[in-house]
Amino acid sequence: MPAMNAFYAQSGGVTAVINASACGVIETARKHRKHIANVYAGRNGIIGALTEDMIDTNRETAATIAALRNMPGGAFGSARYKLKGIEENRAEYERLIEVFRAHNIGYFFYNGGNDSMDTAHKVSLISKKMGFPVQAIGVPKTVDNDLPVTDNCPGFGSVAKYVAVSTREAAMDVASMASTSTKVFILEVMGRHAGWIAAAGGLAGDKPGDAPHIILFPEVPFDQPAFLAKVRASVENHGYCVIVVSEGAAWPDGRFLAEAGTRDAFGHAQLGGVAPVIAQMVRDNLGYKYHYAIADYLQRSARHIASAVDVEQAYAVGREAVRLAVAGKSAVMPVIKRTSDKPYRWKIGSAPLSRVANKEKMVPRRYITKDGFGITEACRRYLAPLVRGEDYPPFINGLPKYPTLKGVAVPGKLQTKFVV
Amino acid sequence: MPAMNAFYAQSGGVTAVINASACGVIETARKHRKHIANVYAGRNGIIGALTEDMIDTNRETAATIAALRNMPGGAFGSARYKLKGIEENRAEYERLIEVFRAHNIGYFFYNGGNDSMDTAHKVSLISKKMGFPVQAIGVPKTVDNDLPVTDNCPGFGSVAKYVAVSTREAAMDVASMASTSTKVFILEVMGRHAGWIAAAGGLAGDKPGDAPHIILFPEVPFDQPAFLAKVRASVENHGYCVIVVSEGAAWPDGRFLAEAGTRDAFGHAQLGGVAPVIAQMVRDNLGYKYHYAIADYLQRSARHIASAVDVEQAYAVGREAVRLAVAGKSAVMPVIKRTSDKPYRWKIGSAPLSRVANKEKMVPRRYITKDGFGITEACRRYLAPLVRGEDYPPFINGLPKYPTLKGVAVPGKLQTKFVV
Repeated sequence: MPAMNAFYAQSGGVTAVINASACGVIETARKHRKHIANVYAGRNGIIGALTEDMIDTNRETAATIAALRNMPGGAFGSARYKLKGIEENRAEYERLIEVFRAHNIGYFFYNGGNDSMDTAHKVSLISKKMGFPVQAIGVPKTVDNDLPVTDNCPGFGSVAKYVAVSTREAAMDVASMASTSTKVFILEVMGRHAGWIAAAGGLAGDKPGDAPHIILFPEVPFDQPAFLAKVRASVENHGYCVIVVSEGAAWPDGRFLAEAGTRDAFGHAQLGGVAPVIAQMVRDNLGYKYHYAIADYLQRSARHIASAVDVEQAYAVGREAVRLAVAGKSAVMPVIKRTSDKPYRWKIGSAPLSRVANKEKMVPRRYITKDGFGITEACRRYLAPLVRGEDYPPFINGLPKYPTLKGVAVPGKLQTKFVV
Repeated sequence: MPAMNAFYAQSGGVTAVINASACGVIETARKHRKHIANVYAGRNGIIGALTEDMIDTNRETAATIAALRNMPGGAFGSARYKLKGIEENRAEYERLIEVFRAHNIGYFFYNGGNDSMDTAHKVSLISKKMGFPVQAIGVPKTVDNDLPVTDNCPGFGSVAKYVAVSTREAAMDVASMASTSTKVFILEVMGRHAGWIAAAGGLAGDKPGDAPHIILFPEVPFDQPAFLAKVRASVENHGYCVIVVSEGAAWPDGRFLAEAGTRDAFGHAQLGGVAPVIAQMVRDNLGYKYHYAIADYLQRSARHIASAVDVEQAYAVGREAVRLAVAGKSAVMPVIKRTSDKPYRWKIGSAPLSRVANKEKMVPRRYITKDGFGITEACRRYLAPLVRGEDYPPFINGLPKYPTLKGVAVPGKLQTKFVV
């Protein structure tokens, strides 16, 4: 079979290491020129395929591709764009296959989360039906760590490290000020449905009494009296209280705390932060002085403090995706299999996309302490290896040096335009 | 003269490198045993002196003291506690001197900002009047960089680096998502009156069009129409807009964009939440999807990404404070003098506390672009060297390893208790 081209796209919220996966895909593809002539990267993800707007990665130097390993954000642009069901919008899938056919694209590498694995699965099915079979391989990515089957998901280890390091550092700040100033510090982290990122804050502490004193998980219905009692006990026993709260923390009836529809501590209309809601609750009920931080995008773009394990795994799933493709596989996703906790050992396996798509993996109850406010030893055993190792990007003049791509467009071949 | 003891205290908001100054003080004092027998550190700052609650640093190992160089927060506890004017509360000053006399303390090292330099100055004056002259030496510290005379202030370089790195990283995230998702990203940083920290965000960009596209300084009265026009132009020209806003950004009439209504122990208005105000303004007027981060304590405790220049200077002012003391000086503060921009060269000088106390150094107008939303080349020349170099703390199992002090208390000598 003559070599065909590959299409690679990033999907959904980016991570500190998604480009390490891109690096793994492209570097490995370059080693399999007999199978893969070129990797075309979608500009702004799958939209780049639909609109025939693709970047010719063969025009990027080996040094640039290698430097992707250290670069946060989405090197080619990502998209929050979910293809609808085939019955609802067959035209999109047909357009995709039309573009793939025009550009001789036989491989589709889709780097994303649950939704994206569903799309990749559908592309694999419909392309076959349309007589232009494309090997669709998922490349797992999500800061939320909520993909099933895989032991953990690239992107998570780095945000986990960022949250653990930041919690440890901020806790030292608060502890040293608490006698006359802030007694309660709240760090709001991502995780709308799954509390893995909040759980990672728990790594900041080594022994009982260490911060964080409270973690609020989406998986545990918020119990306000128990929460306030724990804040008070923490301040009384330790002098201060550090809280890591997931943006997805919710009331027993399922409403997000952040949807309170109230005004924040400063009288501003509430715009969706859960941290100010918690802060106001603490102030109104306990009167403690508080501060809060909202990490937002900083947490998922903090390549400067990425986990070395995470970077390595992100690269490995990209590399394995290409190996699976050249071995003739389709509708699969590389997964990480843990073979040992201590010492931490892992290997790469694979799973059918049908087993991964549209499923969310929550923090299991046995990873959360009985009172619902902390992580268990089992959780710590699971999380600890994922934040191991530092993988600093190169710095120039005190700032991280990230590559600039040429981003040369693949010349268009189709007469028709597609409007997204 | 027989050796006397020294008292060292941390004051006000802590920084990522205040303990590097403590390290400089204690290590240097240990080299001058003929003058300084022991350094007593105030537990929770000056309150530790008033309540006779001091830590015997001679009981800490050389390794622990050396490790202070890498430790964020305030190793001995800091305090937001300002001694009143001598006429208003003579009792506090008299108590201080009483404690110093009881513990044979002839040196007072006060590690803080403007307010603290005023206190140190007063201690120097009143101790002389009371017949127990104490050599009071200020050790400059503030993330705000608003101390006069000194070219820059230890603590600032590291928060500047954190903000510049975070802005660069988050901007790459937003840039890659903007076609289908967030178009405006707002990072709220500290700086109540002086916009040095916000200015540092400007280092994230190298060339025109780079993020941040807008910086909001406390020094520039907020011009809402001009701001909104610039947001729109940035989104239209670059696809997205990154804004770094100082917590002290204010309307032309002087009101902060985010007024909390409460005041801290120094009587300063307590701020928070300017980012959601800006976000709502963007949403209501332009309709763009936004995200915002509030760095809060993360920015001043981020020892993991401290500036090497800052760590070195923080240590140097601590060391120099002791040298000034053993040379017989009082009512002075070590200052940093820049002797060259390129290559960056600096040396340590000193200034009388009377020239430093209670004065704030703002960002000069010539450091801010004509439109009020950016930094000039002159500002860049000033800021760039201060974030240079990485000085990573040691990591164990993926997390920074920070020392634990024994914190052995100096036995009390006074019969009287003092209630703060």
